[in-house]
Amino acid sequence: MATSALHSVVLLGAGRVAQHLGPALVAAGCSVRHVWSRTAASAAALARQLPGATAGTDLTQLPPADLYLLLVPDAAVPVVLAAARFPAGAVVAHTAGALPLAAVAAVPQVRAGVLYPLQTFSPGRTINWHAVPLCLEAADAATYGQLRELARRLSADVRPVDTAQRLRLHVAAVFACNFINHLLGIGHALATEAGLPFELLHPLVMETVSKALAAPPFTVQTGPALRHDAPTLARHQEALAAHPGWQHLYNELTRSIQHIASGPLPNNEAGAQL
Amino acid sequence: MATSALHSVVLLGAGRVAQHLGPALVAAGCSVRHVWSRTAASAAALARQLPGATAGTDLTQLPPADLYLLLVPDAAVPVVLAAARFPAGAVVAHTAGALPLAAVAAVPQVRAGVLYPLQTFSPGRTINWHAVPLCLEAADAATYGQLRELARRLSADVRPVDTAQRLRLHVAAVFACNFINHLLGIGHALATEAGLPFELLHPLVMETVSKALAAPPFTVQTGPALRHDAPTLARHQEALAAHPGWQHLYNELTRSIQHIASGPLPNNEAGAQL
Repeated sequence: MATSALHSVVLLGAGRVAQHLGPALVAAGCSVRHVWSRTAASAAALARQLPGATAGTDLTQLPPADLYLLLVPDAAVPVVLAAARFPAGAVVAHTAGALPLAAVAAVPQVRAGVLYPLQTFSPGRTINWHAVPLCLEAADAATYGQLRELARRLSADVRPVDTAQRLRLHVAAVFACNFINHLLGIGHALATEAGLPFELLHPLVMETVSKALAAPPFTVQTGPALRHDAPTLARHQEALAAHPGWQHLYNELTRSIQHIASGPLPNNEAGAQL
Repeated sequence: MATSALHSVVLLGAGRVAQHLGPALVAAGCSVRHVWSRTAASAAALARQLPGATAGTDLTQLPPADLYLLLVPDAAVPVVLAAARFPAGAVVAHTAGALPLAAVAAVPQVRAGVLYPLQTFSPGRTINWHAVPLCLEAADAATYGQLRELARRLSADVRPVDTAQRLRLHVAAVFACNFINHLLGIGHALATEAGLPFELLHPLVMETVSKALAAPPFTVQTGPALRHDAPTLARHQEALAAHPGWQHLYNELTRSIQHIASGPLPNNEAGAQL
């Protein structure tokens, strides 16, 4: 049997991901029927932006729809699933990097899927959905096909990613997003403490990232850690004396860089200031 | 007395920074007279790219010039300065983030300065010098004025940065460049191990950086560490079991994020997947 398109959608959750995904689904031609949230005001605020959507806080009174999308924190997923009543045969998909497909597959009489958008969503930021990788998984081929058809209306980068891959990808994303943001925060704080604007570091950050995305990053590593430049490392320790936590982090990151450089992974010749 | 422009330059060093700076100085209207390097072949290779420049390995036979620029690793600076013969009154400047002005000021009969380009220099990369912050320091106002005039021909971002500021800025740059590259390397390795292309993470990295440069990074932190999302943190630990070093780093970075979030620094409401 040919699978039909997923047209009508219910959003379970009204947080940052829902606030970004809801309007994108409408723009992709879907009809968002309903927004559920624990918090009535949040559900209503998001529903107001989605033509024809109702809002509510009762998981036992969800309107019929082709697709129910879970957009709540990971820990809330089992709670929401246990409380919700879904029409038999509906597609129910979560959007979490670190949760297995099995988190949804246990719900009786629904067709389970995962639609994981690999991006960070913040208020006030505009996301180009066309470029957001959408990582899909489903309990059966027909559901996968339906999710893929929907995903392709949102993004040019749609691909199958199974539960084990998705977990690793999520860890990789924590390093490449959350941890990088934290290091930039430390850079910001140190520059500010020196009475210098953070903007001074912008060209360096842009060149660093642009270089690391153009070649395997370990092969373009530079800096005092890689060079085992002991006098510079000692001066940096001194400069971080007021921040023992960051001093410790500096040492751990230095050790990790030196460990990689000593191993079998490809590396570049030592060199280059910074 | 009006100070004269620094026109003729001798490069002491032929490594990555010299390879980027030499052609930029020529483009800015300077005459690079000579390239010195410990290695004859390196000096010759760089000199060949600089019209009229000679090459050599003898620090006691440097030709006359207005400016002598030290472009060697930090540890080599005192060695080169001790061996070199400079004409009395010449400007001698180092280009290192972690070295004090005093490293040059001890040389008798020269005018000491620092010209620190805040950028990472790698082979095969084209640097837009106009955007590279040039951080200047000098032992006297006349020398500072001459260095500033030269620097303004290279870049639109020229500013005074003293020894103490420069050291902190250099540490900030290690966090914002070397350490970020290392985290991207870990992200690359984890994605590759999952059988997924690193390109999948590119939109996330670009959005992360673009967001962190638009607002103080600590105020836009997201992720499981900030949310104290214990189940996700536990799943990530498991996923990193094959890499105890990265598992350790993950925990240290998580702790550091949580420490900042618990402190008096500005922070955002917890939330947002990833």
